[in-house]
Amino acid sequence: MSDAWQECMDFCVEVTKQAGKMIREALQKDIAVMQKSSPVDLVTETDQKVEQLIISSIKGKYPTHSFIGEESVAAGASSVLTDNPTWIIDPIDGTTNFVHRFPFVSVSIGFTVKKEIEFGIVYSCIEDKMYTARRGKGAFCNGVPIKVSGQQDINQSMVLTEMGFKNDPEHFQTLLANIRTILTIPVHGIRCPGSAAVNMCLVACGSADAYYHMGIHCWDMAGGAAIVTEAGGVIMDVSGGPFDLMSRRLIVASSRAIADRIAKAITEFPVGRDDVEG
Amino acid sequence: MSDAWQECMDFCVEVTKQAGKMIREALQKDIAVMQKSSPVDLVTETDQKVEQLIISSIKGKYPTHSFIGEESVAAGASSVLTDNPTWIIDPIDGTTNFVHRFPFVSVSIGFTVKKEIEFGIVYSCIEDKMYTARRGKGAFCNGVPIKVSGQQDINQSMVLTEMGFKNDPEHFQTLLANIRTILTIPVHGIRCPGSAAVNMCLVACGSADAYYHMGIHCWDMAGGAAIVTEAGGVIMDVSGGPFDLMSRRLIVASSRAIADRIAKAITEFPVGRDDVEG
Repeated sequence: MSDAWQECMDFCVEVTKQAGKMIREALQKDIAVMQKSSPVDLVTETDQKVEQLIISSIKGKYPTHSFIGEESVAAGASSVLTDNPTWIIDPIDGTTNFVHRFPFVSVSIGFTVKKEIEFGIVYSCIEDKMYTARRGKGAFCNGVPIKVSGQQDINQSMVLTEMGFKNDPEHFQTLLANIRTILTIPVHGIRCPGSAAVNMCLVACGSADAYYHMGIHCWDMAGGAAIVTEAGGVIMDVSGGPFDLMSRRLIVASSRAIADRIAKAITEFPVGRDDVEG
Repeated sequence: MSDAWQECMDFCVEVTKQAGKMIREALQKDIAVMQKSSPVDLVTETDQKVEQLIISSIKGKYPTHSFIGEESVAAGASSVLTDNPTWIIDPIDGTTNFVHRFPFVSVSIGFTVKKEIEFGIVYSCIEDKMYTARRGKGAFCNGVPIKVSGQQDINQSMVLTEMGFKNDPEHFQTLLANIRTILTIPVHGIRCPGSAAVNMCLVACGSADAYYHMGIHCWDMAGGAAIVTEAGGVIMDVSGGPFDLMSRRLIVASSRAIADRIAKAITEFPVGRDDVEG
């Protein structure tokens, strides 16, 4: 069956290119912004249009496959992962960046079979960087092989995370306390680019050494997880245990030493799961 | 004399292009990193080489002009601003980014006469974006006019700042408390790109609505100050008072309303001045 998945991947790259083009075109126009749940969590008409384009294109070719898409889930669709071939889609990862034309905006697609990620595609469409990875076949950016920095020393590390307001005062407190703890190790610096999928790709290509996040969704992680793994990176849960795509938590890093050090440093707060129906 | 300064500006763009090329070439090679004062404050051989290239090129053409350069000051040169035509140079703004190949790395040059900024150039050399501004003539990116977002509403704003470890516990505490305060307003998000000059240009072209920083240097600000001002932005001190190039503090914003709101929100900590000799 592996050739069949390669065909899916090639098709996915084409669909992702079209989606990225649609996003770039939308950035030329005025943006009618709708508010989803908080100012940090914006959704635009484009977000929904891009997801429709992606899902309808893929459904046309692979009618028996399943889909988990950010906008579909927001509209009530299931986000339980099954053994069926499943496309996990974030049409615009970095929606806040998109609204501000901040240059990290991506289309992220991961493809699972029997709950295992077979390939991942992340297209950082303002930068025009197409990241691709097929299980066991390495990771690429615009066709050029990429690999993690290999950094082992946390004190020499650039760390990525996200920083947003949280309504729950205890979670917000923990988020900020974790940033303080990581800075105090110390590390070279913390950056907050604002697109989870791009963050994973920045670790994959060695521009950063780690990324951690609690409250992320499976559609933010599925594409990047394949890329960072195939680039030689480590992916794990924030507890230090195995990565779980539906857990809404992750650490990716250039080495196990750095991933373990971050897992040890940060305090968890509860974020729920993607596969528990609301 | 204004034609003379335009000639200086044209020459500056050429020198900056060469400097950017040198930086991009260095990024292809291994980097021998030296540590200056802390892991966050790295300096590389390239930093010094690029500053030498810039200063020797300009001195050859304008032997009577003065210079304030990050690396020269680190080596003991004066950083007192005089009425003489003065080139204020940061050869690599975003040194930590440079070391990690994180994509925001810039060459920043501002030019003052009688302590007024006549023009500014910021070359974001990985992105290949050349930002230029001549006093009273507007701001440009790769020759295309740019302007700030014009955003007036802090709740709709993307805010930039920098986040690093500080040895002084009180300063570090205040830095983190300020981030918490800004997030809680709330704003759309905070981003930390890691190059002060690029941050100012991101505000200038409307990709962010504000940037604030305490502990910045005149060579980080001089180029960007011209660009953000000519793009229609507001520049002020963190106290809300007038901007002072040698004060090591600034707020830039898309509007006075947003700049004032940030000035009101943040707590100051002492950072010294660039023009007080060590």
